Amino acid sequence: MTMGYRFLKKLTTVDDAIVLTSKKLSIRLGIEYVNFDESLGRVLAEDIVSDFDEPLVDKSAFEGYAIRGADTLSASQYSPVKLKVIGEVRIGESPIMKGTQGKAVKIATGAALPDGFDTVVPVEYVKVLDDEIELSKSFPIGDNIIKRGEDFKKGQIMMRKGKIIDPFDISMLAQLRKLKVKVLEKLRIAIIPTGNELIEPSELGDVYKTVNTNSYALSAFCKEPWMEPHRLKIVKDDLENLTKAIKSSIENHHALIITGGTSVGELDLVPEAVQRAGKVDLMIRGIGIQPGRPTGVSLVNGKPVFMLSGFPVACITGFIAIVRPLLYKMVNALEPPRPVVKAILESKVSSGLGVAKYVRVKVRRIGKKLFAEPIRVMGSSALSSLTEANGFLIVPPESEGFDGNSEVEVFLYNPIQE
Amino acid sequence: MTMGYRFLKKLTTVDDAIVLTSKKLSIRLGIEYVNFDESLGRVLAEDIVSDFDEPLVDKSAFEGYAIRGADTLSASQYSPVKLKVIGEVRIGESPIMKGTQGKAVKIATGAALPDGFDTVVPVEYVKVLDDEIELSKSFPIGDNIIKRGEDFKKGQIMMRKGKIIDPFDISMLAQLRKLKVKVLEKLRIAIIPTGNELIEPSELGDVYKTVNTNSYALSAFCKEPWMEPHRLKIVKDDLENLTKAIKSSIENHHALIITGGTSVGELDLVPEAVQRAGKVDLMIRGIGIQPGRPTGVSLVNGKPVFMLSGFPVACITGFIAIVRPLLYKMVNALEPPRPVVKAILESKVSSGLGVAKYVRVKVRRIGKKLFAEPIRVMGSSALSSLTEANGFLIVPPESEGFDGNSEVEVFLYNPIQE
Repeated sequence: MTMGYRFLKKLTTVDDAIVLTSKKLSIRLGIEYVNFDESLGRVLAEDIVSDFDEPLVDKSAFEGYAIRGADTLSASQYSPVKLKVIGEVRIGESPIMKGTQGKAVKIATGAALPDGFDTVVPVEYVKVLDDEIELSKSFPIGDNIIKRGEDFKKGQIMMRKGKIIDPFDISMLAQLRKLKVKVLEKLRIAIIPTGNELIEPSELGDVYKTVNTNSYALSAFCKEPWMEPHRLKIVKDDLENLTKAIKSSIENHHALIITGGTSVGELDLVPEAVQRAGKVDLMIRGIGIQPGRPTGVSLVNGKPVFMLSGFPVACITGFIAIVRPLLYKMVNALEPPRPVVKAILESKVSSGLGVAKYVRVKVRRIGKKLFAEPIRVMGSSALSSLTEANGFLIVPPESEGFDGNSEVEVFLYNPIQE
Repeated sequence: MTMGYRFLKKLTTVDDAIVLTSKKLSIRLGIEYVNFDESLGRVLAEDIVSDFDEPLVDKSAFEGYAIRGADTLSASQYSPVKLKVIGEVRIGESPIMKGTQGKAVKIATGAALPDGFDTVVPVEYVKVLDDEIELSKSFPIGDNIIKRGEDFKKGQIMMRKGKIIDPFDISMLAQLRKLKVKVLEKLRIAIIPTGNELIEPSELGDVYKTVNTNSYALSAFCKEPWMEPHRLKIVKDDLENLTKAIKSSIENHHALIITGGTSVGELDLVPEAVQRAGKVDLMIRGIGIQPGRPTGVSLVNGKPVFMLSGFPVACITGFIAIVRPLLYKMVNALEPPRPVVKAILESKVSSGLGVAKYVRVKVRRIGKKLFAEPIRVMGSSALSSLTEANGFLIVPPESEGFDGNSEVEVFLYNPIQE
């Protein structure tokens, strides 16, 4: 909502902006090998294939007794079968037992089935006598056994390229004994705040100055293990300096986020500087989000340059709607699922056709129901609306809003206070 | 599901286990001061209060012209008012203008209102002549102004103690110029794997050995900025060694997670060792989750000691159901919202009364609907069930399960493949 956005002739939809940009991306990220226990949150750059069967031997699924199924064929309530207990197998022990016919071996859950035995009888079906057990029903051969390779088999693909490694995967990598994992190098993202009015939070300035909050927010959003955000210095509204800053930062980074100066007013030099900074394959100016209409995306030398509003809330919604999905596309990974809840809207929300409106709402629980209160503020700079809210209600471009008392979906970013 | 869990007389419910433990916790965490831009994900240990009004001066909410509302009182379509444009104010500029009656000043969105002006007319209501503007309706005084302090006021509490700092908060801290923030020291968590059968992923061992995956999984789950997990060495099933390990690690940590040896069989020395390691205020053994029934919680010298199953899936469900909620309680923070989706269950799922069953399901989208397929595996060690699935269907303790084709809620931990 800086000067002149309304003179941008036509807004590109969020979906179109993402598709158009991702089609023309031509980034090749490097590869790194990291220790599996340091790979959390990195993007897997290889399919992970198992080198062995798991389990490596047949194991007992229950606590009970290993037997030969054939020995129980005639067992019934009226004519129980007695088997002699000749030993015990615990987890991790090597089971060497001699003579198996008519014999049983006490066995722990997960312990390896001793040679010559083929079946397990869970302890609750067993009557324990002195050194014998009594069974009053028959057990089919193979009952209650975890067969070799039942969890996974040698040669099986266990994890796919492009997976963002989570704690379950770490656990699986340990199991597979993959001590080193091939991952994508970190996505280096430059963040450049622009504007003559900006000062850093630590700087003194008169009351007319604006504190740079955007690059701190964006850098925080990019603190994922697979990204490496770099906050660069504030650049003044000066074409030459801007062009230089964009040129040099695009050389050393995979993506660039510029905040401020992105609409059509006289001080909006950013798109001009982007044009001069390299080979421009795409220039989208004006995207259908509110706040954030002046948001733009360009591709310079194949790398995305995101132009976000300088107004804090518009900057953040631009990041969430456009930048973040494209960063995931740059590494060919799926975005993690985000929490969505249904809530009853406390008051009417209006929106213009053709824009996705990000309404900050505070969701609270009253009884068993959730209610969403729109946080009303003027302008797109009021950060308090984001910290007071705990979710976004997104009004889609084809809707003019929602009535009070209607049920809406809210993207929750913070917990619901009880 | 190790030996003997069924002899545990009564299972404590998950909710009771959490309430009983959190009631008796008596941990005092230390305080640290960190730079605001390094505070992401830490637990705020102070209320954050604003030192000033924001904005510090009245600002324009729109691009347009600053005027005196009184000058437009008589304006109408038939008798428009003309005002002379005497200058321009951009963002960050100091507005010194002389003489305001009958005058207008061009103004940018977010720019400070010049002295003597009290109203803004958005550009779309303005007919621009040479050095004049023409208004054909009246504007009430104060229209389209963001008043000083409208975002927040001096003395206002902006963030509360116990908040886990997110990117919105970082942005707000920048805005408030809080360069240093008081946060809780990191929660130090010791993780001790136990069992004679265990070897590390890097160690050679015979086919009967079990690779330690649990402490890697748990450590990955605890890699939050406010936690500091420490993986300790594998401890053999030996009462003296176990007691020593528990004693020493509890001295240097706020919480302790032990995996393996937690049920009632002969090799289950962990609870005995815990009893000997200090002053025990609580000992819960057997919790109503499946897999994970042998899970236990104890308080030793006021610190929680979590006893999780050695079986990988049971260990992880025990962590998710019991440990994680209690870690959040230890720092007095709310757990972040987790993504939940509704899906149609592809086949029947059965569960025993009195236990919360964690069923691993794979959710996929077919057309516009989501379907959840239960991953069938034997035993509670099959990690592949977790990496193949992308969510948990939790059957509550009061339910015996769900029929095929019923609609269920799934906690998604990985994206839905399209």
